[in-house]
Amino acid sequence: MHPARPRFPRVVKAIALAASLCWLGGAYAQAPADPLPSWNDGAVKKSITDFVPRVTTEGSADFVPPDQRIATFDNDGTLWAEQPMYFQIIFAIDRVKALAAKNPAWKKKQPFKAALTDDRKALAALGEPGFLQIMAATHTGLTTEEFAGIAADWLATARHPRFNRPYTDLVYQPMLELLAYMRANGFKTFIVSGGGIEFMRPWTEKTYGIPPEQVVGSSAVTRYQMRARDRPVLLRERKVEFVDDKDGKPEGINRFIGRRPVFAFGNSDGDKEMLEWTAAGSGARFMGLVHHTDAVREWAYDRNSPVGRLDKAWDEAVRRGWTVVDMKRDWKKVFPFDP
Amino acid sequence: MHPARPRFPRVVKAIALAASLCWLGGAYAQAPADPLPSWNDGAVKKSITDFVPRVTTEGSADFVPPDQRIATFDNDGTLWAEQPMYFQIIFAIDRVKALAAKNPAWKKKQPFKAALTDDRKALAALGEPGFLQIMAATHTGLTTEEFAGIAADWLATARHPRFNRPYTDLVYQPMLELLAYMRANGFKTFIVSGGGIEFMRPWTEKTYGIPPEQVVGSSAVTRYQMRARDRPVLLRERKVEFVDDKDGKPEGINRFIGRRPVFAFGNSDGDKEMLEWTAAGSGARFMGLVHHTDAVREWAYDRNSPVGRLDKAWDEAVRRGWTVVDMKRDWKKVFPFDP
Repeated sequence: MHPARPRFPRVVKAIALAASLCWLGGAYAQAPADPLPSWNDGAVKKSITDFVPRVTTEGSADFVPPDQRIATFDNDGTLWAEQPMYFQIIFAIDRVKALAAKNPAWKKKQPFKAALTDDRKALAALGEPGFLQIMAATHTGLTTEEFAGIAADWLATARHPRFNRPYTDLVYQPMLELLAYMRANGFKTFIVSGGGIEFMRPWTEKTYGIPPEQVVGSSAVTRYQMRARDRPVLLRERKVEFVDDKDGKPEGINRFIGRRPVFAFGNSDGDKEMLEWTAAGSGARFMGLVHHTDAVREWAYDRNSPVGRLDKAWDEAVRRGWTVVDMKRDWKKVFPFDP
Repeated sequence: MHPARPRFPRVVKAIALAASLCWLGGAYAQAPADPLPSWNDGAVKKSITDFVPRVTTEGSADFVPPDQRIATFDNDGTLWAEQPMYFQIIFAIDRVKALAAKNPAWKKKQPFKAALTDDRKALAALGEPGFLQIMAATHTGLTTEEFAGIAADWLATARHPRFNRPYTDLVYQPMLELLAYMRANGFKTFIVSGGGIEFMRPWTEKTYGIPPEQVVGSSAVTRYQMRARDRPVLLRERKVEFVDDKDGKPEGINRFIGRRPVFAFGNSDGDKEMLEWTAAGSGARFMGLVHHTDAVREWAYDRNSPVGRLDKAWDEAVRRGWTVVDMKRDWKKVFPFDP
């Protein structure tokens, strides 16, 4: 009755071997792949890869429950480039050009004349009042849907003057990895930017994996208007509703998100208050700044730059031991298209 | 060499039997349980249970990708009760009483005198200016954190005058089921309410499963202030920032969510514009209203009610074939504590 017995141990061995292979395969698959391959090893990368497990490991003294894992990121200069000007200003100038035929008087009238002739010196001299006039002429008086379409079209066709690529190519590869790493660890990632909320929303989901409802930005007042029976629109008015910069960042975070971030990243003095607000929460917090130090691959600027000035926030970061990324030293790659 | 063979079919049979049992067990577990057990069968329930699979079944002409599944719900009168007054007004009156010792002049000064003596007639006669004075005195001049603590404390201790229960018990069981049903089908559920955003956020997650960042509401201006070195606060100022009612609802949806809802539920004329905005999107849309028809289990009110008036929105719903819930007819249970 037992002639078959000798076969069973062989089967058992085979199963054991298969199981071992499965286990080894599993162990191999679970070997920690570097979640931030474009970050050079060093104190900056370590500050991130130490922090995240510290707040996400159950039983850790610094554990943060998943629903409280809020990470906020500035956009211009933190997730994508901002030179030679904020990209939204380049968009506005391009809009002036596109609308010039319908506005012949602009040829002789500042600030439009300067925009039409790419006279950057004159534009700079016209300062904020000039800038606001250009913004009003190009960003208001149309519906939210019309504006979203125009912004999306521009991003699909416009090319950056230095790199001759779509502006959405000029995102930072290390920050894309960081966004994905935070989300893989249960964080909800938000943009908190001084840029226009409706300029960003048409493309942040595709580019960053951040959906419109997780984008906080500056805005114009909109007005609900019934254009025809059952056809309402939201009209963008000339009135500024909210400036999501400096003090506005914690105010915007409170208004839109309603929770204090555990993790925040910026690059300029406009982000100082967001980092302070993040730091003032109880429990472990992470505050980071991108310092633009790489004139070869990107740009080098800080205390004296008119765009993305990093001065007071830098001093505060040093005093308080926040993470300061040295782009040249800490990033293997800047843009996804870098070799 | 084949003496063991006869044993194998038995093993195979055993495995087949086990597999069948597993399959049957699985099939049994997957038998469609009613996701809306507190809704009576009828056209209203059917309008919901027809719509949801229509927009969530891949290949359906009306399929909506998961990232676009936005569902918005009014709060007062839609998710929880709003009689005899909006609960936030009862909170404000209770705050006047709590602060009376520190403000002795209030005893002789309207509208505080009326609040302190529960003189509802006088309060009604003082109208909106009186109401705004009470709101300013009780809702501003303190930090966002102080306010959240006070609101949470009040909800933990205050009792509704008719039901002698915490106000958060007066949520509608059928709507809790609807929120869960929408989320189970990939919808992100948002509150879009005229109520104060910071009055709602401390409790919506626990009560409705809606996190703070998915609550849109009315707000006061906040101001970032450094109270001590590295100790910033957000101070609630006396200035109204945003009224999330009527026209404000689509404006708030656009500002906070940045996408048009596919599904929206309200109960009063304050929700008309939200439903119109939802209806004006392309593709399948669902618009619903709760009509308060049950004076026994809840309250009955509509066209002539000073709280939660349902008049123009009702006419529009009838004209356009939107879903109108008759609370008495369509809901088996109103509150979770109902038998």
